[in-house]
Amino acid sequence: MGVGSSQSLPNSTFPCALAATFFPHQSQPIFSFNPSTIIFQRPCKRAMTERSLLWSSSSSFVPLNSGKVDQVETQMGSAVRPMYDFHGIDEALLQRMVYDALVWSSLHGLVVGDRTVKRAGTVPGVGMVHAPFALLPMPFPESHWQQACELTPIFNELVDRVSLDWKFLQEALSRTRKVDSFTSRLLDIHSKMQEMNKKEEIRLGLHRSDYMLDEQTKLLLQIELNTISSSFPGLSCLVTELHRSLLNHYGKHLGLDSKRILGNSAVTQFAEALAKAWKEYNNPRALVMFVVQTEERNMYDQHWLSTALKERHDVTTIRKTLAEIDAEGKLLPDGTLTVGGQPVAVIYFRAGYAPTDYPSESEWRARLLMEQSSAVKCPSISYHLAGTKKIQQELAKPNVLERFLENKDDIAKLRKCFAGLWSLDDSNIIKEAIQRPEVFVMKPQREGGGNNIYGDDVRETLLRLQKEGTEEDAAYILMQRIFPNVSPTFLMREGICYKDHAISELGIYGAYLRNKEKVIINDQCGHLMRTKVSSSNEGGVAAGFAVLDSIYLT
Amino acid sequence: MGVGSSQSLPNSTFPCALAATFFPHQSQPIFSFNPSTIIFQRPCKRAMTERSLLWSSSSSFVPLNSGKVDQVETQMGSAVRPMYDFHGIDEALLQRMVYDALVWSSLHGLVVGDRTVKRAGTVPGVGMVHAPFALLPMPFPESHWQQACELTPIFNELVDRVSLDWKFLQEALSRTRKVDSFTSRLLDIHSKMQEMNKKEEIRLGLHRSDYMLDEQTKLLLQIELNTISSSFPGLSCLVTELHRSLLNHYGKHLGLDSKRILGNSAVTQFAEALAKAWKEYNNPRALVMFVVQTEERNMYDQHWLSTALKERHDVTTIRKTLAEIDAEGKLLPDGTLTVGGQPVAVIYFRAGYAPTDYPSESEWRARLLMEQSSAVKCPSISYHLAGTKKIQQELAKPNVLERFLENKDDIAKLRKCFAGLWSLDDSNIIKEAIQRPEVFVMKPQREGGGNNIYGDDVRETLLRLQKEGTEEDAAYILMQRIFPNVSPTFLMREGICYKDHAISELGIYGAYLRNKEKVIINDQCGHLMRTKVSSSNEGGVAAGFAVLDSIYLT
Repeated sequence: MGVGSSQSLPNSTFPCALAATFFPHQSQPIFSFNPSTIIFQRPCKRAMTERSLLWSSSSSFVPLNSGKVDQVETQMGSAVRPMYDFHGIDEALLQRMVYDALVWSSLHGLVVGDRTVKRAGTVPGVGMVHAPFALLPMPFPESHWQQACELTPIFNELVDRVSLDWKFLQEALSRTRKVDSFTSRLLDIHSKMQEMNKKEEIRLGLHRSDYMLDEQTKLLLQIELNTISSSFPGLSCLVTELHRSLLNHYGKHLGLDSKRILGNSAVTQFAEALAKAWKEYNNPRALVMFVVQTEERNMYDQHWLSTALKERHDVTTIRKTLAEIDAEGKLLPDGTLTVGGQPVAVIYFRAGYAPTDYPSESEWRARLLMEQSSAVKCPSISYHLAGTKKIQQELAKPNVLERFLENKDDIAKLRKCFAGLWSLDDSNIIKEAIQRPEVFVMKPQREGGGNNIYGDDVRETLLRLQKEGTEEDAAYILMQRIFPNVSPTFLMREGICYKDHAISELGIYGAYLRNKEKVIINDQCGHLMRTKVSSSNEGGVAAGFAVLDSIYLT
Repeated sequence: MGVGSSQSLPNSTFPCALAATFFPHQSQPIFSFNPSTIIFQRPCKRAMTERSLLWSSSSSFVPLNSGKVDQVETQMGSAVRPMYDFHGIDEALLQRMVYDALVWSSLHGLVVGDRTVKRAGTVPGVGMVHAPFALLPMPFPESHWQQACELTPIFNELVDRVSLDWKFLQEALSRTRKVDSFTSRLLDIHSKMQEMNKKEEIRLGLHRSDYMLDEQTKLLLQIELNTISSSFPGLSCLVTELHRSLLNHYGKHLGLDSKRILGNSAVTQFAEALAKAWKEYNNPRALVMFVVQTEERNMYDQHWLSTALKERHDVTTIRKTLAEIDAEGKLLPDGTLTVGGQPVAVIYFRAGYAPTDYPSESEWRARLLMEQSSAVKCPSISYHLAGTKKIQQELAKPNVLERFLENKDDIAKLRKCFAGLWSLDDSNIIKEAIQRPEVFVMKPQREGGGNNIYGDDVRETLLRLQKEGTEEDAAYILMQRIFPNVSPTFLMREGICYKDHAISELGIYGAYLRNKEKVIINDQCGHLMRTKVSSSNEGGVAAGFAVLDSIYLT
């Protein structure tokens, strides 16, 4: 079982003195770099009165509004002293930093497709806008970052072991499949592979384990482990470079040292893992195929990865949607997958993780075709299933990790980062969650984030499920709600700078590659820091948004 | 006098066999990378029947539609065999190159503001679109490029000498000032400086001399010499890198060698010149000020230059409009210009070259204030005037170059690149131009391009001026029309690839810096290749457009 299930809620009083120093007392925008462009929001009094609104929103933050890759967890945060002295930042200096940051992003490809431009999700080079980013890095304790790094190879290994246990996956997900047709389809493919006795001898995982640092307990707790479509290896590296550039120029004025920004090599390490998997496949004519959505505003993150693959390893990428793979894909007698006549060595999924990615049978045919082939799948159907929330919850049960791992230290390390996780067949927990819904999050098995249930909705949903008495409860897990630190932050979106309170989520990328004989890669591969705010609709801020950030080691 | 004034028009027959191999026979788009995005235009038959339309347009090509920086000359081109074998390019290969080129542009900052996005000209990072570019480099003879390079330091020196001759500038422009209020205002400032006996001891020129290669005579002929706001030092370097990247990957399939793409260091050399001028000014607290337009969609070209200044030389840039300089500028008793309280070492004009840049007296006050200061002006009012078309025409008169230069070889070299240039007080030339208007271009003194007069309009305008008998003729010069080579080209704009016939214009950047004692820099500084097409409004192509290109040495 995970730790911390009975942990009490931190006191939610907000340090007013701090807010008063951070937020000037005007009730209008503090200054505008250009009247129509950059506005600093949230004057003190409003921030205080809006607090309940600010932190009890039940929706996830969606920075780019394009599926799983952009979803981040909403967790309620407690307020503590920020680690920078923002109060000392001169407005003119801030204005220059904002301008320089926008310029840097534009010149260095820290961009996404603009949601307001029709072709921005299909044609590169049109309708670009800078990616949402925090103006400054987020302080994070070095010890906790190191802890997360140490966990990475253990999680990588765990996923691989779990993926080999057909029975465990099928049994753990047996109730879920009855109420979740998406998981059910994935399990069908999984069963077919089992029947075929299909072996994945070259196995590649490009994962990202997401954590929050619980303010009260100082525990690093895992939010989820992504085994498919771990996004932002490209753009996260760029934000690190952006922050280094800013601190190189302005660090002295801010009392910040650019050398304390944690380096990030996610994109080159992911590219290297893909290249090595390609090499293992051992067909020089074969390509790496990115499975992509029809519209993808986060395409530049993916392009950075394919560019690194080409420039550093001379490996060529093609991009195909599931529908295209169904139309153009062929399985040769030797198991080779060809798409448009081109043999595929490695299939890298940046789509296929959500039900919406399979609008027709065509997409499911494509998924099955790929799974049947000899191409290296990143991820295989087993890796995909091993990353589901239900499996995360099953692994948190007593004595389950021991089924897959031998090393007791490793098991203890993993367990330490597990938040409380329960299935809905635990009547004691249901009772507790109905009584104190504010300390739980209800998560649907379904991928894609943005569907989590918080606060009073937890109580209402649980009561409804109890009343109905169906098996719909199997579609959810319950998780301990984490309360991370809250920091005042500058968030940049669409050329506008917002001052707001924010919490952060740390993602650690991991790469795992093995062949029949040995493990080739089992590494930590850089990180993704996401800083997110929940805001009212007042003051020009939409429902809430998350931005890319970097780590300032403390 | 310039050469080639009586040169006959090349026969305008178009090699149909060539067109037939280049343009497939469909009358619809040849293929679409994505149906709504990339269309190859101009099937063979239409191209043939539209030929007169294609090459006799009287308007200049305006790629970005934002003033002088984007204007390029329209000259009528003759058709010769293209230097690449485009016929051999596989469509799938082309499609990949187009996609890769769009991705490369997005990731590497080869971008401009999108004309359809409101804030794209004022806020960096929003409303970006790739800059228009040619998919492949333009063949250009190495000997002619070398010739242009050799001319650069001579032109640099010439501008400096001419700028010191107050009397020459005032006299040469005396008739122009009567009919052109813009030149008149510049001359007023020039006169005031003369009265003040103002000396510019540190003189910085960042010029660009534009040429076309006349197909018939194989002569490299100067179109104009820009002494103010020479644009695209940033983006031109990026196009060179883009083409290298494409040929590194696809050169073998095309029979092209990336090593033959001419290197381009315009942005680093311009930055170095600005940094050295800043150093000469010798005030470590002072900044470089870019004088910019209120809206500037070509801002990223400028940002590349200020980024190079900061990163390579640790020199900080501020950006101010003329109106802001009027509002915030002060002249200290020692001649120091401060803007917003910050001392300015170097003033770099990327605005102020066109009448539209001076909508009120405020802007003229700013220009005068700057001119009175001790800051290094790039350009000074004298340098600005020395680059006007009227001065270009005056310098082409017999024995005028000898007034400024001693070296007979240098004089001969300059003269060799002069096209025929005449003022409208030459009755023989007026007569000839009325008879054969197709071999002349009529150019208004006014800067900004896009105002040139071609074809029958030349005759009509000359006849009108004769009839009216006013001094309006002093607002124009006549120039020999140049007929460069025509090549089938792939032009990329707004994510769409067009196949069309195009001509190219070569710009060679030059930097000149001197102080009281000595010349510090007198160099050629890279190049700008612009490829332009004139098209009908049919087939989705707007009136015509120009794209950035690079040089493939032949």
